[in-house]
Amino acid sequence: MAQLLRVQNFNVSSDGYGAGEGQSLQRPFGHADPREIFAWAGATASWPNRTEPGGTRGLDDHLVRDFHHNIGAEIMGRNKFGPQRGPWENHDWLGWWGDEPPFHTPVFVLTHHERPSFTLSDTTFHFVGGDLAAVLKRAKEAAQGKDVRLGGGATTIRAFLDADLVDTLHVAVAQPELGAGSRLWESPDELRDRFHVDVVPSPSGVTHHLFWRK
Amino acid sequence: MAQLLRVQNFNVSSDGYGAGEGQSLQRPFGHADPREIFAWAGATASWPNRTEPGGTRGLDDHLVRDFHHNIGAEIMGRNKFGPQRGPWENHDWLGWWGDEPPFHTPVFVLTHHERPSFTLSDTTFHFVGGDLAAVLKRAKEAAQGKDVRLGGGATTIRAFLDADLVDTLHVAVAQPELGAGSRLWESPDELRDRFHVDVVPSPSGVTHHLFWRK
Repeated sequence: MAQLLRVQNFNVSSDGYGAGEGQSLQRPFGHADPREIFAWAGATASWPNRTEPGGTRGLDDHLVRDFHHNIGAEIMGRNKFGPQRGPWENHDWLGWWGDEPPFHTPVFVLTHHERPSFTLSDTTFHFVGGDLAAVLKRAKEAAQGKDVRLGGGATTIRAFLDADLVDTLHVAVAQPELGAGSRLWESPDELRDRFHVDVVPSPSGVTHHLFWRK
Repeated sequence: MAQLLRVQNFNVSSDGYGAGEGQSLQRPFGHADPREIFAWAGATASWPNRTEPGGTRGLDDHLVRDFHHNIGAEIMGRNKFGPQRGPWENHDWLGWWGDEPPFHTPVFVLTHHERPSFTLSDTTFHFVGGDLAAVLKRAKEAAQGKDVRLGGGATTIRAFLDADLVDTLHVAVAQPELGAGSRLWESPDELRDRFHVDVVPSPSGVTHHLFWRK
């Protein structure tokens, strides 16, 4: 079975932005409100950050619980890892996720600036630069036969799409507009020349777009 | 995390039948054509019986690949296991699935007629009678913390629904009518008093009904 590069549960606004402008420590998604972006996922029984029992077990839950399914590594952009730009001033920043990051696999963070790998619980972060195909090759080796998740943000997904390295994408399109920020697409129809797509409206209000390579 | 009893990928006709009349060795689904019933699942990349590469990776595939997700045991009715009725004449029949049954867990076959357990590859079949709640308790113990799949047929699912033991159901409703056979419901609306439901039409033509307990 071939190893795939999969985008899972990536959220964009109705106008195609994965995050707003002005990312900072206090606002990981810039001017976008993450509660709005993640509301559909947070309502499900399988949402990993759920603190109380309950939650829905319908369509949205099936997509949320697929997040870890047969995934052996993640690749993410540096802006998903943290708000810093340029060379690392120090190595104090360990990501947004506290002592128990939700990945549970090796994670490859794209950056031009070297930094030693480190491990938190069962997630190890590696910092890698250079050619995207080479990064993917390294992530597939680390995934030991399983698929690799492409975690975002939008700029990173766009770069892998432009290099024609993405096999499947699940993008949840929310109703709010963002107007500016990090953009995945002007329209999902841009991908139709290379991908099949199922467009599936959810009762929760988001519309799931499920793409797979032609 | 509570262990759930889940119906996964159960197929019915538009008039609610899971199988036709006249089950036999040659026709496990009676007068129903299994190619029609399973066409939506057989077209997906994750269909376990797929012999050639390819297949869709959209909505239907997400549901098919969830089949094994966090499942530690299955309960099935005797008519899913085989076409025999009454006491076992011998123990030659080992199910429809050949040497590699697609379950990979303990399977509990409901029957009034005793028979010794046996193992094929990584699937062990047990033959159990009596109270449904007691059978479910035994299957949950065997599942070791994972959920239990309720595999059908329609009569078996109906019995567990009547005993109020089912937590979630995924039922794919196909367009053909069957007119007679083993019936799950007259209408999916029968379950709305006890379950939430997402009704999700697939581009393949089936309509997925995803129920979870209120």
